[in-house]
Order: sequence, then structure tokens, then C-alpha cells
Amino acid sequence: MKRRIFSILVDNTSGVLSRVAGLFSRRGYNIDSITAGTTMDPRFTRITVVATGDDQILDQITKQLAKQVDVRDIKVLEPDSSVSRELALVKVACSVESRQDIINLANIFRANIIDVGMESLIIELIGNQSKLEAFLNLLEGHQVLELARTGITGLSRGSDDVVWFDD
Amino acid sequence: MKRRIFSILVDNTSGVLSRVAGLFSRRGYNIDSITAGTTMDPRFTRITVVATGDDQILDQITKQLAKQVDVRDIKVLEPDSSVSRELALVKVACSVESRQDIINLANIFRANIIDVGMESLIIELIGNQSKLEAFLNLLEGHQVLELARTGITGLSRGSDDVVWFDD
Repeated sequence: MKRRIFSILVDNTSGVLSRVAGLFSRRGYNIDSITAGTTMDPRFTRITVVATGDDQILDQITKQLAKQVDVRDIKVLEPDSSVSRELALVKVACSVESRQDIINLANIFRANIIDVGMESLIIELIGNQSKLEAFLNLLEGHQVLELARTGITGLSRGSDDVVWFDD
Repeated sequence: MKRRIFSILVDNTSGVLSRVAGLFSRRGYNIDSITAGTTMDPRFTRITVVATGDDQILDQITKQLAKQVDVRDIKVLEPDSSVSRELALVKVACSVESRQDIINLANIFRANIIDVGMESLIIELIGNQSKLEAFLNLLEGHQVLELARTGITGLSRGSDDVVWFDD
């Protein structure tokens, strides 16, 4: 079983996200995460899908994706030649006593406190998956009220394989 | 036309993401962004959808979402009572001459340089949508080679409306 990050450039059309997600789920294949955002060219959206499975199934899905008319480019991001990051927002219950400890933990991870309430804090943290997991594990002594994660997005390093589109 | 951020808690089942995205797209409704990530409880995934439309259609979609068996909770995140953030990775072409200018711009936005190549840099930036747009506009004098955005994720402020699940 391998974990693969697909970086898929698609036409910015209604339903393309649902179709891409559907390609994975129709094979009973649960997506670990999916993110989608517009690119500098508003005609295109970049979808990043993280999925785990055996090589054969992942190759099949890649071929199926390539057949879609609104899929313009598919890259598999290899760990050695790419960067990948995820954003998490974590709401943690705190008292006057525990607040400083939570702030200390956030500082160690270079996380930011973006909201302070009477009984809770919201922390913004960015990192690869293992950094986020490590932070959440460290918070175990505290009560995590809510967690929102974006899922992973990524880019290949360097500029060799940039794909250009003609008008 | 209004922009709404839906924070949807769903069962972590195969296909749920595709079904949620499909509910929007079947109405010819293009999703501005969608993010999905696991919560502290591995049985649940939090999906954040940003969509623009008139009140009537958005209300219809909310009702349709609520009818799905794997949808556990739907919140509309109001700007005043929530925080929302997005992560962007930006690959910018640079020469020895232009590198310092790009680094200066990144510093102003508290963005991080996470990869340096001979001819390009990768910048990691976190913020709300207007901060990301402002940064991308400032980069206009440079050549953005690739852009990957996660889409928006968010949490309501405070701890009043946290939903608890019984086992």
C-alpha cells in the first residue's frame, strides 16, 4: 500500500471536482484528502488528491483521470522532489491556568493563536502531515473542541516540469 | 449574491465527498473551494465548502445536505463569529537579481520560503482570501510559475455551539 499525492490541473467547470472525487470513490477508494483552488489563470483549478492504495489501482485511476476532457494535466508528487503542506485550525478548551501551556506548545511549533475566547483558543498551524500529527498528539492533555484541516496541497520543486498552456 | 462558508461534519465514508460536491454541482452551482480533513474522532470528516449564490438556492442546498444520512452537522460560518484561513504555495521564477525583492515581499506578508531552486522559489502563505489576493497581486512584476491553494477552512469562534456526539 502506497500513499500518493496527485496534483491535477482541471478546467474550472461546474462538477469537475465531484467527477474527480467520484472516480476515486467508485472504486471503493477513500480519499485521504482533497483540496482545490484556483490558479493564476482563472480558467483552471488545481486539485490535490491524497490517496492510499496499491500501485495497480493507483495506475488505473491515473489513466481514468487522463481520459476526462476537463483534466489538463496530472502529476504525481514524489516526496523527494516536491513540497507538501497542510493547514489546520484547532480549537482547544482552556482555563486561565492552562492557557500559558497551550501558548507554549503553539510557539514550539511556530503555530499562531488567531482567536482567544474566555474558555477556548483557536490555533493556526501549517506543516506536513507528521508535524500536524505530532502537534495534535502533544495537545492530548488538553481538550480539543474542534479541528478543521484543509488537507494537503503541494508543488513539485524546481521549474523543470512546469506545463504551459497555449491560448 | 452572497458568499457562504459551510462547515459540514460527515461520516468518514467512501464517496461522501463526491456526494456533497455533487449536491452543489447538480444545481449548476460552482463551488469556490472545498477542503476536507479528518477530525480528532477518526469516524468523522469535516468538509468546508465555500459557495456563492442567492439565499434561496443556498437554503435549498442546506436542506438537501441535512437529508444526507452521512451528514451529521451543518454550520454556516458567519464572518463576524468565525475565523477562516487558506494556505497557498506559490512557485515564483527568480534570478539572482530578483530573489531579494521576492524574499522582501514574502517577509512583509509573514510568508515562508520553503524551497529555493536555481531559477525559482516556493513560498508558503497563510491568510484569509483577501490577504492571499493582495500577495498575488504584489507578485505581478514577477512570474508565477505554479500556484496551489488549499481552499478555505474555518471554525466558529468561542465554544458555544460545539456539537458533541454520543457513542
